[in-house]
Amino acid sequence: MTTSLAAKISRDYGTPALVIDMDRVERNIARIQKVCDDAGIANRPHIKTHKSPVIAKMQIEAGAKGITCQKLGEAEIMADAGIDDILISYNLLGDEKMARLGALQAKANVTVAADNSVVIGDLPKAAALAGRNLNVVVECDTGRKRAGVETPAEAIALAKEIAASKGLTFAGFMLYPTETGWPDAQKFFDEALAGVRALGLEPSIVSTGGTPNLRNVGSLKGATEHRFGTYIYNDRMQVAAGSATWDDCALNVYSTVVSRAGPERGILDAGSKTLTPDTGGLDGYGLILEHPEAKIARFAEEHGFLDLGRSNTRPNVGDVVRIVPNHVCVVVNMFDEVVMVRGDEIIGTLPIAARGKLR
Amino acid sequence: MTTSLAAKISRDYGTPALVIDMDRVERNIARIQKVCDDAGIANRPHIKTHKSPVIAKMQIEAGAKGITCQKLGEAEIMADAGIDDILISYNLLGDEKMARLGALQAKANVTVAADNSVVIGDLPKAAALAGRNLNVVVECDTGRKRAGVETPAEAIALAKEIAASKGLTFAGFMLYPTETGWPDAQKFFDEALAGVRALGLEPSIVSTGGTPNLRNVGSLKGATEHRFGTYIYNDRMQVAAGSATWDDCALNVYSTVVSRAGPERGILDAGSKTLTPDTGGLDGYGLILEHPEAKIARFAEEHGFLDLGRSNTRPNVGDVVRIVPNHVCVVVNMFDEVVMVRGDEIIGTLPIAARGKLR
Repeated sequence: MTTSLAAKISRDYGTPALVIDMDRVERNIARIQKVCDDAGIANRPHIKTHKSPVIAKMQIEAGAKGITCQKLGEAEIMADAGIDDILISYNLLGDEKMARLGALQAKANVTVAADNSVVIGDLPKAAALAGRNLNVVVECDTGRKRAGVETPAEAIALAKEIAASKGLTFAGFMLYPTETGWPDAQKFFDEALAGVRALGLEPSIVSTGGTPNLRNVGSLKGATEHRFGTYIYNDRMQVAAGSATWDDCALNVYSTVVSRAGPERGILDAGSKTLTPDTGGLDGYGLILEHPEAKIARFAEEHGFLDLGRSNTRPNVGDVVRIVPNHVCVVVNMFDEVVMVRGDEIIGTLPIAARGKLR
Repeated sequence: MTTSLAAKISRDYGTPALVIDMDRVERNIARIQKVCDDAGIANRPHIKTHKSPVIAKMQIEAGAKGITCQKLGEAEIMADAGIDDILISYNLLGDEKMARLGALQAKANVTVAADNSVVIGDLPKAAALAGRNLNVVVECDTGRKRAGVETPAEAIALAKEIAASKGLTFAGFMLYPTETGWPDAQKFFDEALAGVRALGLEPSIVSTGGTPNLRNVGSLKGATEHRFGTYIYNDRMQVAAGSATWDDCALNVYSTVVSRAGPERGILDAGSKTLTPDTGGLDGYGLILEHPEAKIARFAEEHGFLDLGRSNTRPNVGDVVRIVPNHVCVVVNMFDEVVMVRGDEIIGTLPIAARGKLR
């Protein structure tokens, strides 16, 4: 009898463990690169999902133009590993961040996003420290009400401010349209583009984003690149959104059933400190591949509460199960390392080097 | 003009930053030690909240009998720092865990919990590796439907199994009653106690738990100790539960407002990867001390969405605010270090050494 992969993972690493299937990872990389190639735009994957320079280099090797980071600390890890052409898709401000951004710019070509004048007022400090110009894109809100200016007029005004700031180069626009918001995004962008052109400015980057926007990629006329993040591993949310199939889900959390104190319930050794309470708008906190009708109903910090009431199959204490998490990006961030497998073979581990880089 | 603490934190560490007021930490330690002393029971604080051997030693120095850990990896960190008398309040099983538990037992006096025969069947492997007996308490469910046997009869049967297992010593019972469940817990315990006594067994540990059980501590006749966790820092949940006042909240997340794209909204640089989506049953994801009417309404991974619609005061981009999180235990686990302050002075940083010890 051969030892199952679950038994090997449990024996060598213990549970809960984060496991990625490298065949699926490579297939996801190739699939999304082809989507970008076919759409005639560059691929700038968001590393927030995997937080690993090794995986980022695989994405670049396959054709990605550069990478996207959300936090400066993530970008520092990537640049230290030799990765160049980094977009930090976030408003950075304050002296501590500017000192680090200046040092980062000395190592790598960096572009940052800005949606307000306070940020644009701070960024020249980083450029001065680096001794070279910093590229800045204007973040535009096109429906999410997150960061990003709300109107083309504001976008044009900020572009003008950037262009007038010593040490800054206006680099273009960053958008993150909702799945249904692309016509509105086009209208916003066209107006902003006309405005900056009237000022004699020309965007070199027009960046769209989001794995759930798979089917929209390339549909914004004038876009130069797309930021895919979650596609590298996929999850229950991406399957629900139609952006991935279960076969595209490359990551599982391996967890042990540690208690079965009642006939219709059980406890996993993966709680909110492992799977996180991020529902992603779905019912339950993950799909258990061995028991798809079992529900991860709620959490304590180190307990996952299994509701087995509707499940015909019920695990025993000691069983190791594989979970496809609801939102993979936040789950990866809870682990120090990921175990790489191909089929039933363990290849090794990869540090999640930018894990917990909150600053 | 003196530099404010927020400005100093932002300058020296950047945001988001985790900050604890050591005066309050010390006051919380003294207060809860007194509660236990007055109740005539031992204090066995749960380190899941702070995950720091330094803080654990402060608790022991103040009179705690030992500590509680939820995960083996937490206990390893604590034992490596020289802490003895560790209760691991969790079902441990499998060869990988048994090898580590055996090694841990060689360094420290360890007690583990068990609620089923599979776990009790594995534990002798650890004891054999350690070359000495392992103390095992039976976990009893008294209303939470988490781990723990559901009936006194099962508890008695497991006590018998433990006592009959080579290398294991029956050490007693572990309970985690709900705030209103103490009379039921007493009934359960009395029956279990009579049963084990009839077998010639006597519990040396009868452990109750939970900071929200503050007012119940000592009310279980026969209890020998209580496991307080969250009290070390407290949070919005503990204030809501009446177990702490705002002045007892020793931990703040310092966060910068990075965007104010609309008049009634803003973005904090603390999202779900910082504050976590754990609501703790409350509305919003934390109290902003400077703007108590502002609501942290939702999250993206690195964005906290501020709803300012009902707030008379509204922060500007660049403002640093202090947040009392809903559930402090899960937030501490997102950071590598905590900044210690006294009043307006920064003392230094403390690594969150057992952070992310999921196994």
